[in-house]
Parts: sequence; structure tokens; C-alpha cells
Amino acid sequence: MRVDIDCFPCFLRQSIIALRLGTEDKALQELILKSILEVIRNTDVSKTPAHITTFIHRKIREMLNKDPFKEIKSEYNHIALGLYPGLKEMVEKSPDPLLTGTRLSVAGNVIDFGIFTSVDIDGTIRRAMNNEFAVDDYDVFRDALSRTDNILYLTDNAGEIVFDRLLIETLISLGKRVTAVVKGSPVINDAILEDAEESGLTEVCEVIDNGSEAVGTILDWTSPSFQEAFKNAPLIISKGQGNFETLIGAEKKIFFLFQSKCDVVSKELGLPTGSMLLKKS
Amino acid sequence: MRVDIDCFPCFLRQSIIALRLGTEDKALQELILKSILEVIRNTDVSKTPAHITTFIHRKIREMLNKDPFKEIKSEYNHIALGLYPGLKEMVEKSPDPLLTGTRLSVAGNVIDFGIFTSVDIDGTIRRAMNNEFAVDDYDVFRDALSRTDNILYLTDNAGEIVFDRLLIETLISLGKRVTAVVKGSPVINDAILEDAEESGLTEVCEVIDNGSEAVGTILDWTSPSFQEAFKNAPLIISKGQGNFETLIGAEKKIFFLFQSKCDVVSKELGLPTGSMLLKKS
Repeated sequence: MRVDIDCFPCFLRQSIIALRLGTEDKALQELILKSILEVIRNTDVSKTPAHITTFIHRKIREMLNKDPFKEIKSEYNHIALGLYPGLKEMVEKSPDPLLTGTRLSVAGNVIDFGIFTSVDIDGTIRRAMNNEFAVDDYDVFRDALSRTDNILYLTDNAGEIVFDRLLIETLISLGKRVTAVVKGSPVINDAILEDAEESGLTEVCEVIDNGSEAVGTILDWTSPSFQEAFKNAPLIISKGQGNFETLIGAEKKIFFLFQSKCDVVSKELGLPTGSMLLKKS
Repeated sequence: MRVDIDCFPCFLRQSIIALRLGTEDKALQELILKSILEVIRNTDVSKTPAHITTFIHRKIREMLNKDPFKEIKSEYNHIALGLYPGLKEMVEKSPDPLLTGTRLSVAGNVIDFGIFTSVDIDGTIRRAMNNEFAVDDYDVFRDALSRTDNILYLTDNAGEIVFDRLLIETLISLGKRVTAVVKGSPVINDAILEDAEESGLTEVCEVIDNGSEAVGTILDWTSPSFQEAFKNAPLIISKGQGNFETLIGAEKKIFFLFQSKCDVVSKELGLPTGSMLLKKS
């Protein structure tokens, strides 16, 4: 899916979130925002929004000379770890642990400081557990899982990665071998290896990085070793809207678990913004 | 008041409203939006948001080779004229026609297709008549009116100008001489002479134009004859947020009647967005 003109103001809105996290210097915020106008102007809008967002956040990190999301990522890893024991109990006591783990994993996708300035984790968990998903390919998902032992799991955000750990532990308890994937280096609040360690995920399964700091998974920009893992994976679980945007066209068996957070993607899907999805490719 | 970084996404959001009204050609929309990024980048952000918006809408009209608001302005003049008899009755039956006329005039300020894509006129009228204003200098306003016979009335939007006509008729019935001011040529959905004619205002009072197509009233860019009228006016009624932004620093007795429609202006005022104001300078 390609950039829509409605993405343009949103690019700036997201940039402002990053800039306010990164510096209190208003002149610097303004200078960087003006540079971002130039980045947007020079980018090929026939690509996905994730492409442009990648360039934007690269520019922000360069000009701030730091990763503005570093602290908030760690903060939300710890907030999610605080919820972990209760959520783990929910999964273990569930008549269908896979269903509960899957829904909690989608709930965790609300932790996204690239797009939101605040999140209601508890409310989102309740919504994920009690309401129907807008798209729910759970039966196909469970069926596909029953026919493979190896899963490549593309994580999305820090904090959310604790929810991913829950689902991955559930998959492992069902006899699956899971390889989790994080970003190669910081971009927005996406999980990197540090977050996988902080969330305890590295103690649960193999974690690899995709060698890229792109938003979502822009295959051409990932490392050869990740591309190999992607190509060979019989089943891929893909978290988040960025991965959905960039992988929806891929010729792979992918299950997309995410919340549609923006009007453009939601319109493309024919769903209200804020919808929760478990969608097969 | 100067541009805040939160204005940047809003500049683009407002541009998109104009572009969608102006053309269905998506490539052209995108091309113009990219040109607007350049306009924003090259503008002095120490000025008011109205300055930048003026440059943006000039660029849009140039590149579309037309005024994208022409039809919607006329449409809303007619919608407001349809409401006129009922509103006129409200004013005439009111124990305080000036108060009712003033509040209806602020209600009419909701008709703003530079900022909104749809408006709830009836709901806004109810709100204006039944709720307290966030800032209400009505007593000072009535008192100031009692001590002058001449009023310069700066209109804002088409459609809204019918509500202005109501208040101006009320002022005239109180023995005042009112000169209404419209823009010199089209900008967003601001009223020009054509709208003053369509709304019947030209039959009620003298209507002059300010010789400018700036958003709000950027005095330096107005005609010498308007500047003279402005300088000599003992009391000015100023409609809309654009006029507030650009005239708040002026050394004149001005009463600002408007709704604060954006977060940046509302934050500056310390009020919730959507507040209604009758505010003395």
C-alpha cells in the first residue's frame, strides 16, 4: 500500500512526538521539522508510508544525535513486565491458551509511541479479550500452526515485546520452535536486541535481528541472513501495522496481528480506525 | 502569536481540505502538497500561523488555477440564508437583542471550511445560546457600544456573514453606523464582496474590502484606504480566529468574537479547543 495525501500531516505529527521526546530545545525542534519537510518532499510517495517514516526517523536521530525513544522504550518494557505475571496466569488458566495469548499479543500492539502520546493498556486488554476482532482468521491460524513446527515471529514495539513473549511461550508449550526477529538498530520505539533482553525474550527463544532500521520490514533493506530466514520460514507471525504495510504483498504464509492505528490503513482495510486484526496473508 | 510546531501538521491538513475541494486529480493533489512543503519550509515561522496559511492558499489557488472554495462558500451562504428568518425572529423576540445577536454571530463562526470538513450549525447555535462563553466581555462590549456611533466590523467566513448581517442589523437598530469589511480577493472560505452581496449584507450597511487576500487581517498587506478606516475606527468588531491571531497585538479597541478552533490558539488562551469567546483587546 502506497502513501496517501492524508499521510503527510501524520508524518509531521509523528515527527513532533519524536522531537518532543528527544529535545526541549524549541529552535532545534523547528529546525529538524523543517528538514523533515525536505525529506518528505524528496521521497518517492509511490512507496509505502513506512518507507518515508524510515527516512524521517533516520533524519531525526541524525540531527538529535541520539535515539529519542530510548528511555520510553525501557519504561514500557518495565510496565509490561509488571503486567506479565497476571497475563501469564490469564493464558495458563484459559480453556484455549493459544487464543488468549494471540489476543493479548494484539492488545500489546497498542504500545506505540511512534503514533500515540499515551496508551490505555488495561482498557485495550479488556477490549481484546471481550470484543470480536474486526478480522479474525484464528481458525485458519490454529490450523496452519498444527501443520508446522517452525515459526518466524516478527516483533514490533518495545513494551509490546513482553506480550509477544507470552504468545511465544504459549507456542513453545505447544511444541513449536520460534525464532523472534527484532530490528537491527533503533527506529521509533521498535524492539531491538536490547529490548528482547530486557523483556526476557532472549531466555525464551532464539532472537535474531533483521539488520535494518526500517519501519516495518522492507525486505530489500534487511540483512542476507534475515532474508534467508524469511525465505525459509514455513509460517510467519507479523506484528504491527508497519510490518503489515510493508509485507502485505509478500508471497509468504503470514499471519498479521495488529491494530489498525491510522485512517489511511483502516480505509484501505474497510475497517474503523482502532480495529484489532488477526489476518492471514 | 507565532507558529508552533503543532501548526505544521495542521497546515497540511488544511491544505488537503482545499485540495480535495479543488480537484479529484490525485497526482495533482500530491504535486501541490509537495509544493506546500516547500512553502512552509521557506516561511518565517516567527510570524503568525495566518501568514503561512496565506502563502499556502495562494500557492494552492495558483497551482489549481482556481478558487477551490467558490462553490462551498455559495452553498453555505444559502444554507445560512435559509436559517436567517428563524434567527431574525430569535433576535427580535429576545429581551436583549444585542446579546442574542452577538452570540449568534459567534455561533456562525463554526462555518469554517478552512479548518473543518463538516459543521453542526444547529448544535452550535444551541450551544452559543445556552452555554456560558469561555471568555465573555459582553458587559464591557455593551458599555463600549453605548459610547460610540461608528463601528468597523471585520467579517470572517462566507455563510457566517449571514450571522454577521443579523448582528449588524441589530447594531443599526440601536442607532449605530456600521462599516463591514470583507477580503479583497478569495482566500480559503473568507467572505469577499460577492458573499456580502449574496448574504444581503450590502443592502444593510456599507461594505468595503481590505484589499488583501491574507488570512486574518495582516495590516501591512491591506490597502491604504482600509488602513485609514482601521486607524480611524473608534471601535472594531473582529470575527474569527484568523483576525484574532493577526490583530491581538494591535493598539485599538477591538472586540474579538470567535471560536478557538485549534489546539495551539486554545493553549495560548488557556482554554479548551472549541471555546466560544467575546474577548476585548
